[in-house]
Amino acid sequence: MSDKTGERLTHFDASGQAAMVDVSAKPETTREATARARISMQPATFALIARGEAKKGDVLGVARLAGIMAAKRTADLIPLCHPLPIAAVTLAFESDAAASAIDIIATVRTTGRTGVEMEALTAASIAALTIYDMCKAVDRGMVVDGLRVTAKSGGASGDFSAP
Amino acid sequence: MSDKTGERLTHFDASGQAAMVDVSAKPETTREATARARISMQPATFALIARGEAKKGDVLGVARLAGIMAAKRTADLIPLCHPLPIAAVTLAFESDAAASAIDIIATVRTTGRTGVEMEALTAASIAALTIYDMCKAVDRGMVVDGLRVTAKSGGASGDFSAP
Amino acid sequence: MSDKTGERLTHFDASGQAAMVDVSAKPETTREATARARISMQPATFALIARGEAKKGDVLGVARLAGIMAAKRTADLIPLCHPLPIAAVTLAFESDAAASAIDIIATVRTTGRTGVEMEALTAASIAALTIYDMCKAVDRGMVVDGLRVTAKSGGASGDFSAP
Amino acid sequence: MSDKTGERLTHFDASGQAAMVDVSAKPETTREATARARISMQPATFALIARGEAKKGDVLGVARLAGIMAAKRTADLIPLCHPLPIAAVTLAFESDAAASAIDIIATVRTTGRTGVEMEALTAASIAALTIYDMCKAVDRGMVVDGLRVTAKSGGASGDFSAP
Amino acid sequence: MSDKTGERLTHFDASGQAAMVDVSAKPETTREATARARISMQPATFALIARGEAKKGDVLGVARLAGIMAAKRTADLIPLCHPLPIAAVTLAFESDAAASAIDIIATVRTTGRTGVEMEALTAASIAALTIYDMCKAVDRGMVVDGLRVTAKSGGASGDFSAP
Amino acid sequence: MSDKTGERLTHFDASGQAAMVDVSAKPETTREATARARISMQPATFALIARGEAKKGDVLGVARLAGIMAAKRTADLIPLCHPLPIAAVTLAFESDAAASAIDIIATVRTTGRTGVEMEALTAASIAALTIYDMCKAVDRGMVVDGLRVTAKSGGASGDFSAP
Repeated sequence: MSDKTGERLTHFDASGQAAMVDVSAKPETTREATARARISMQPATFALIARGEAKKGDVLGVARLAGIMAAKRTADLIPLCHPLPIAAVTLAFESDAAASAIDIIATVRTTGRTGVEMEALTAASIAALTIYDMCKAVDRGMVVDGLRVTAKSGGASGDFSAP
Repeated sequence: MSDKTGERLTHFDASGQAAMVDVSAKPETTREATARARISMQPATFALIARGEAKKGDVLGVARLAGIMAAKRTADLIPLCHPLPIAAVTLAFESDAAASAIDIIATVRTTGRTGVEMEALTAASIAALTIYDMCKAVDRGMVVDGLRVTAKSGGASGDFSAP
Repeated sequence: MSDKTGERLTHFDASGQAAMVDVSAKPETTREATARARISMQPATFALIARGEAKKGDVLGVARLAGIMAAKRTADLIPLCHPLPIAAVTLAFESDAAASAIDIIATVRTTGRTGVEMEALTAASIAALTIYDMCKAVDRGMVVDGLRVTAKSGGASGDFSAP
Repeated sequence: MSDKTGERLTHFDASGQAAMVDVSAKPETTREATARARISMQPATFALIARGEAKKGDVLGVARLAGIMAAKRTADLIPLCHPLPIAAVTLAFESDAAASAIDIIATVRTTGRTGVEMEALTAASIAALTIYDMCKAVDRGMVVDGLRVTAKSGGASGDFSAP
Repeated sequence: MSDKTGERLTHFDASGQAAMVDVSAKPETTREATARARISMQPATFALIARGEAKKGDVLGVARLAGIMAAKRTADLIPLCHPLPIAAVTLAFESDAAASAIDIIATVRTTGRTGVEMEALTAASIAALTIYDMCKAVDRGMVVDGLRVTAKSGGASGDFSAP
Repeated sequence: MSDKTGERLTHFDASGQAAMVDVSAKPETTREATARARISMQPATFALIARGEAKKGDVLGVARLAGIMAAKRTADLIPLCHPLPIAAVTLAFESDAAASAIDIIATVRTTGRTGVEMEALTAASIAALTIYDMCKAVDRGMVVDGLRVTAKSGGASGDFSAP
C-alpha cells in the first residue's frame, strides 16, 4: 500500500481547492478493479433470499442489475471522479449461511486514463443497499460491512490487492 | 424489529416478480430516517483529513455535498424505490482519532407516502465513497463498515432505532 | 376517443411555441394508465427466452426492472412531460408461443395533477428494447409493434380504454 | 441474419447471471446503426401535425430533439448497454398521408467498441412517444408499430440490413 | 429587497456546514418565479437566428426546449436545491435588433414548499448556452449578461420584483 | 473571431433540421476551453461570502463542486452537444471587493473529437447560480454578467481568446 501521506491529496490544487485532476497526459490502458462488501441479516431473512434465488422473488438478481447500472452512474455521484467508457461490469454473490451474510463482489474493467476503483465500490455498495431495500420490510437491522477495494490492476500507480 | 419473515417480500408480487409496490393509498406524513457508516484508514490519512478540515483541502466538505446530492438521486439508483420530494438532508461527521476512523451520520426528512431509509443509506454510503476517492492516492486500503439505518420515524410501520 | 382536433395542441401556446402546460390549478387525484407493446422474434429466440425464464438467463426479469426504472425517468426523456411522484409500477409479460411473440403490459399509478400515460408507454417501450438488447446477438430482426395506451383512469379528461 | 440460437445469450455468464459483457479487447471502429418506427393516428391528428410543421406548433421538431437527447441517455436506460461516445445522431421523418402515419428514422454513429443499435432504437422510440405526448389531448389512440433496426455497419459481427 | 445580512446564510447550519434546509414544516402553496438573461452577438449572427426563426434552422426552438428540460433537472445541478413537482415552464424570447441581442424570459410555477427561482434561472441560463452552442461555429464571442430573477410570488418570504 | 455567417449553422442539416453533427472523422486531440462569469451582489452579501471563505459557511467551496459536477452533465443539458470524456475541470474565483463581485473562471480539458467550450460555460454558469442559491435568502437581486468563452485551444478550428 502507498504511504505517500506526506504529499497533499491529489484532488486538491496547491491552494487546497478541490479540482478534477488532469488525466489528459495519461495513456489509455486496460484497467480493472474489484470491490467487495458484506451484508449481514437475520437467519430468517437469509433463508427468504435463498428461497427466492432458487425459485422466485429474485432479490440478488435485482441487486445485481442495480449494481451494474450504478457503476455507469459513478461519475455523476462521486464529485471529482472522471467519466470513463466502462467496458465490463460483473457482480457476484457468495452466501455465508453460517453467518447469515451475503458477500458482494463487483469487478469493473475499462480502457481509459484512470482506474475504476470508484466504479467497483459504487456497484458493490448500491447492490448491497438494494438488498436492504428489498428486505427492509422484514429486517430493518441489516448491516453492510467490509466495503473496500480488494484488487486493482493497470495504470501507472501499480497493482494492488488486499484481503 | 419486525419478524414477519413468514410473509413474502413486499417488492415482489404474488407470482414472485419484482414490482414497485403501490403506495397511492398511504397518507402523506412527515417521515425521517438516519443512517450511519464508518470509514477506517491509516493514521497518516486520518491526520491528513483532519488538517484539511482545519485549514484547506476540505475532504469532509466535499463528502458532505456528495452525500446530500446522492440522497436526491436515490430513486434513480435503487430499482424499486419510490421518488420522493425530499424536504431536508443533513450530513454530520464524527472523528475517532484513536481508531483513525470517521463516522458519517446522514439524516433525511420528507413529507411523503413512504419512508426515507434508502435516501439516508445512499447519502451515507456515497459520502463514505467520496472520502475514499479523495484519499485513495495515499491509502487504498480504507474500509467502510457499519453502514446501516439507526433511526426511523413516521409512517404506518412504526418507529425504529438501532445502536 | 376525443375528436377535438379543431383546437390547438395543448403543448403549444397561442403563438405556437412549445411550453410545459400549467397544471397547478388541477387537483391531485389518483390516476392510472396501462400501456402495451408486443415484440416478435424468431421461434428459436422465443424458445431461448422461455428456457431462460424457467431456469436461468432471465431476459424478462431484466426487462421488467428496466421498464420500472425507465418509468421513473420519463420526465427526463419526454420534453414537455411533468415530473410526477410515481406511486406504483408493474410490468407483466404474456407469451404467445404460436406467434413467437411476447406482450409487455406496463401499469403505472400516481397521485398527481396529470396522468401517467407517458410513464406507462416509456416503461413498456424500454422493457421491449431491453429484450431486444439481450437477444440481439442471436436475432437482430426482432420487431416491436402495437406500442399504445390501452387504459387510463382518473383526472378530468375522463377514462379511456382501447383494445 | 444470425441464427446462432444454440449459443447462450451474450448478456448472461456461464451460470446464467446477467453481466455487462467485456468489450475491452475489441478495437475501436466506426459503427453506425439505423432504426425505424411508425406512429399511426387519426387523419385529423395527422393534419394537425402537418399544419404545425408548415407554420407553427412544431411537433416533429420537438420529437426530433427528444430523440437526439434520448440517444445520449441509452446506457442509463438499457441495463447492460455500454456507455459510448456518440459521434452523430440524426432523426428524419417521412409522412404517409394516405395512412395518416409518420415514419421515424434514427441514425447514430460512434467510434467505439460496440455497436449503436440500442442508441438508434432508443432515439426512434422516444421520438415516437414524444409525438404521442404532444398529440394525446386530441388522439389517445395513436399506435407505434415497426420499431426495429433496419441497418447496422461496422464491428466484427458484420453488416446487417432489413426492410 | 431583504437586507438580513446580519443572519447566517440559510444553507449552512449553526456550525457553518452545508445542509439542505428543512422545508417539511412549510405549507404547499402555488409559487412562481421569472428569470431573465440577455445574449449579445454579432449583427450577422443575429440575422442568421432571425432568418432561422422565420423559415428553418430554428435556434430559438431548440433553446426553448433545452431551457424547459433543464428546469426539470435543477435539483440535480444545484447542490442544496430541493426537488419540486414543477407544474409549468414557459420560455419566451424578445429580439433587440438594434443591439443584436436576444432576451430570454423563463417562468416556472409549482405547488410546493419552496420557491422556483433556481428553476427559472437554470432554464434561462441553459437556454442562453444552447443559443451559444448552436451559433458558436460562426460567433465564438457571444456574451450572456443580466442573468437574474425578475419576479417571484408565493411563499412566506413575500413577493419580489426587479427590473 | 470567425465571420463565416454566410454559411448555415452547423447544428442544422441542409433542410434546416437540428442534428448532432458528425464528428467521427475528426481526430482525438487534447482540447481546452476557459469560460468566465461575474456575479454582482450587495456589499453585505459580499462580506458574508468573504467571511465564510475565511472561516466557515463555504459558499465558494459549494459553488466550485457544483460547477465541476455540472461540467460532467453538459451533454445531458445542451441538446446537440456531444458526450466527451472530460479529463480535467478546475474552477477558480477572483473577488472584486470594490465592485462587490466575484469572478468565476472555469477551465475544462479533454482528449476528444470536439471542443469543451460548452462544458466550461456550463460549469461557470452553474457555479454562479449556486452562489445565487446559497445567498438568495439575504440578497435576491444578485446578477450574473459576462458569461462567455475567454480561451479555447486544440482542434481544427484554431485557437481563440477574448478579454
